[in-house]
Amino acid sequence: MKRARFAVGGRVEHGTLADDGHLVGADGKCYAAREVTWLPPVVPTKIIGLALNYAEHAEELSVQTPQEPALFLKPISSLIGHCEPVVYPPGVEYLHYEVELAVVIGTRCRAVPASSAHSVIAGYTIANDVTVRDFVGNFYRPPVRAKGYDSFGPVGPCLVTPDEIPHADDLGLRAFVNGELRQQGNTSAMIRSIPELIAFISAIMTLEPGDMIWTGTPRGISHVRPGDTMRLEIDHLGALENRVIG
Amino acid sequence: MKRARFAVGGRVEHGTLADDGHLVGADGKCYAAREVTWLPPVVPTKIIGLALNYAEHAEELSVQTPQEPALFLKPISSLIGHCEPVVYPPGVEYLHYEVELAVVIGTRCRAVPASSAHSVIAGYTIANDVTVRDFVGNFYRPPVRAKGYDSFGPVGPCLVTPDEIPHADDLGLRAFVNGELRQQGNTSAMIRSIPELIAFISAIMTLEPGDMIWTGTPRGISHVRPGDTMRLEIDHLGALENRVIG
Repeated sequence: MKRARFAVGGRVEHGTLADDGHLVGADGKCYAAREVTWLPPVVPTKIIGLALNYAEHAEELSVQTPQEPALFLKPISSLIGHCEPVVYPPGVEYLHYEVELAVVIGTRCRAVPASSAHSVIAGYTIANDVTVRDFVGNFYRPPVRAKGYDSFGPVGPCLVTPDEIPHADDLGLRAFVNGELRQQGNTSAMIRSIPELIAFISAIMTLEPGDMIWTGTPRGISHVRPGDTMRLEIDHLGALENRVIG
Repeated sequence: MKRARFAVGGRVEHGTLADDGHLVGADGKCYAAREVTWLPPVVPTKIIGLALNYAEHAEELSVQTPQEPALFLKPISSLIGHCEPVVYPPGVEYLHYEVELAVVIGTRCRAVPASSAHSVIAGYTIANDVTVRDFVGNFYRPPVRAKGYDSFGPVGPCLVTPDEIPHADDLGLRAFVNGELRQQGNTSAMIRSIPELIAFISAIMTLEPGDMIWTGTPRGISHVRPGDTMRLEIDHLGALENRVIG
């Protein structure tokens, strides 16, 4: 099932995305995708990001891969839905998209063994971990400013339940800018697998329903500027499209 | 006014702390402090911490003070109230308390000039930014693991409104371990003032009611172990006491 949250007619609907591309409200009413405002498909209490979870991306940045998962937190105030604009901060030189598989937690949990991590997953969605590269002088710095601006967390379009994802560890990821393929990878190249990440993080902190783990980005980051359209695709998860505005 | 949140009789009360030390529920009913479970006085959507905002603390750690405010995010899952236990993680060598003035936001805001920062402040409380020093190899690393464990965010006992705080930039801070004074400072020694911090952070992200800025800790950190009691005091804000358990 593809769950969607969207605003229409002055209400927030928790509905689904049908195969024909229509959105269906909880009451069965149909909406064209163009007539709604897409919202992030889930409402997290926190977003845990992975700084370097693809060796090829670490190589591209000329940094060593970390000895343990390099976590950061992204403020939930940065979240926006599909088709909403990402605002380019004034005075910034390098703004990067980053396509990432977002794992959504479905149940409050703590100290989950990797072997049962699948039981706490509500589903998956696409995240764009928008980053001001100017502010990432040291790749281990807390990237609050680099990744924390309002609108720097596009996510969606939908929450796709695990039954629709045969192998979360073998999903192609792609990012297009103005239609040009710029970034490409596969979740099979993650340094730490999804179960390992859930085990590591939940050994530290309680995860709540809606919380997300953004599992890192593969090679292929590049600059975007106001006017550019970022389209991020992940196999089985659809496409997340957001335009950069000045 | 000293606002308190506490659980009693199976309910969460939003009440006040009277001068005689009693808690008063919204319905006027009185409770002894010992008969309730203290909760964090506010419910934030995020906590923004300052890594090094007292020159004396940077000196104690032998690191340079940062050129701009060094922000990190603390997960809200780490929060606990007054008198609740802090859990010592297994295998850890150095666990530190850190007494900090917590500024609580009262109104949704973005891009607040320093000159009007006071208008978005709901009040102040005491925070203990509990930290595993083992995991802070580099003081600029995102300290998600070092500071993110469940129970690593004691806060309270109350939210004290600004009318009770004559000068937030001149408050004595003290931390006692088992009754022994270990840490002492004054908010007048902050590198960045509260209005500067609110301006800097709100230029990046929207702040929501209940969100907190933990303004950094002065000199005087030291180790605590299971069995130790941490008592943190700030002038006009009372005392926040939490025991470490194994």
